[in-house]
Amino acid sequence: MTDLILVGIGDIAKSKHEPAIAASEDFTLRAAVSRHHTVEGVENWSDYDDFLVDGPEGALSLTAPPEARLAMTRKAIAAGRDVMMEKPPAPTVSAALDLAQRARKAGTALLGSWHMRHGIAVLEAQRWLSGRRIRRVDVEWSEDVRKTHPGQDWVFEAGGFGIYDNVTNAFSLMTILLPDALCVTSATHEIPENRSQPIRTDLEMEAGDAPVALKADWRHEGERIFRIEIETDRGTLVLPDGGHALQADGKTLVEKGEDREYQALYASFAGVLAERRVDVDVRPLQLAADAFLLAAATRTDAFDF
Amino acid sequence: MTDLILVGIGDIAKSKHEPAIAASEDFTLRAAVSRHHTVEGVENWSDYDDFLVDGPEGALSLTAPPEARLAMTRKAIAAGRDVMMEKPPAPTVSAALDLAQRARKAGTALLGSWHMRHGIAVLEAQRWLSGRRIRRVDVEWSEDVRKTHPGQDWVFEAGGFGIYDNVTNAFSLMTILLPDALCVTSATHEIPENRSQPIRTDLEMEAGDAPVALKADWRHEGERIFRIEIETDRGTLVLPDGGHALQADGKTLVEKGEDREYQALYASFAGVLAERRVDVDVRPLQLAADAFLLAAATRTDAFDF
Repeated sequence: MTDLILVGIGDIAKSKHEPAIAASEDFTLRAAVSRHHTVEGVENWSDYDDFLVDGPEGALSLTAPPEARLAMTRKAIAAGRDVMMEKPPAPTVSAALDLAQRARKAGTALLGSWHMRHGIAVLEAQRWLSGRRIRRVDVEWSEDVRKTHPGQDWVFEAGGFGIYDNVTNAFSLMTILLPDALCVTSATHEIPENRSQPIRTDLEMEAGDAPVALKADWRHEGERIFRIEIETDRGTLVLPDGGHALQADGKTLVEKGEDREYQALYASFAGVLAERRVDVDVRPLQLAADAFLLAAATRTDAFDF
Repeated sequence: MTDLILVGIGDIAKSKHEPAIAASEDFTLRAAVSRHHTVEGVENWSDYDDFLVDGPEGALSLTAPPEARLAMTRKAIAAGRDVMMEKPPAPTVSAALDLAQRARKAGTALLGSWHMRHGIAVLEAQRWLSGRRIRRVDVEWSEDVRKTHPGQDWVFEAGGFGIYDNVTNAFSLMTILLPDALCVTSATHEIPENRSQPIRTDLEMEAGDAPVALKADWRHEGERIFRIEIETDRGTLVLPDGGHALQADGKTLVEKGEDREYQALYASFAGVLAERRVDVDVRPLQLAADAFLLAAATRTDAFDF
């Protein structure tokens, strides 16, 4: 068992990381670092810098928001710590690539996580697609931001990614499902008139010769739609809910079960540690940056939580 | 001498490529491909696809605008041609990386050019900086877009990059002058109310521990300002006009002479061909995409040519 230190105790740490660590066969939670919250039954540190100097040994799992996380990750690497980062790996692609470079130089292990890749249906989807020719891809990735980010104004501020906070999850799956490189060819962003970042995006992309369309709207009400449909030369694959379930040609191949994404993520971090690897895949963030580079922006109604 | 085919006969081909090829010790112009223009004294092809099937052997120099160029480059690689591309290498970073990948698979040589890197002062600037510690970098990159892109509305349309058409040139120098990875930390874009793309940008960046500031304005009147100032632990370096001249601590190290950027660029392409290399540095485009990802946009007065 490897000692683990959980840094940044917010919603995602409480709801996803803590249960996954508790269930992990690889990690024991040794300490928590947070300015405002504590975790019962372990050492708690309120100051991150103090922790890095005097805190216990162990690998770090950093769950703080992207902007704060960048400086924290740099400090952790400089202090010789192994780190797993929540997604996205950094506020920009250049900064993410730089983190990977710093970890390589320092000889520390580093994992930039994309939790959706660890859904139970993902491996089976890759297996099904193997050897088939992709003809067309259709993606919808909509949810109600009032439910998923209630009151979190920062998602609509510059650097907050807007709807791409969500869409990078779709990209994280698409980049490991599609064999050819994915490129954005045009993007339309709807930006509420009282906000800076898009609440909706419509993307045209290509994966090799196959056209790929993606739409994502944060004003969606009701059940979330995280749907990827891939038409091939021999049938059509549907991931109806992220990486959690799978259908092919109308038949269910993987039924939606218990969400074990974060447990699988921690198992993957154990592998990164065992092999002393630096695993920072910037492609999902790259596609977001490319979309912003190409985007035609239109103004839409003001949005308030 | 290698046979060269010039594809896309616009202003930049006439003013920069043709003279550089004429003066080159490595290349002979064999043919030109352009829908609307011809070059005297060589074979002229008006249809690019026809040319790829029936045209003469030779390496391609592609000078068409970025959007058209992507498809042309893919076709050239698929036809087994060696290619040099004008900057930027593609409309998006993902597409540029994909081109490099396609060239590697096809075994063709590919150069994504950044012409400013071939200014006569650049090597001397790198030499001067070597072993010095960077403390602060200040960049201004302003010109009068009415003079440099008269009537070219596409630069202000989605995918036209706006002022970054120019700023990527600054990035192309900064990325080979500064030893540490350059990251954008904040960006402000001024977008004319009748346009989609920024006419001015103010960037805060970092290169390792050194703060980097960049401003660029396309409404600048009079002489262009392409200025990079680098303060180090042992003196201050100034590139007062792109890569064309150099001063250190107030003394002139390289005086501005004849502009031989494109001649040096073609010499560099000869090297890429000799070594059968794929040389596509996406960093300048990456920094632009990162800036768009982070940018706070403000509206400014309408702009008309």
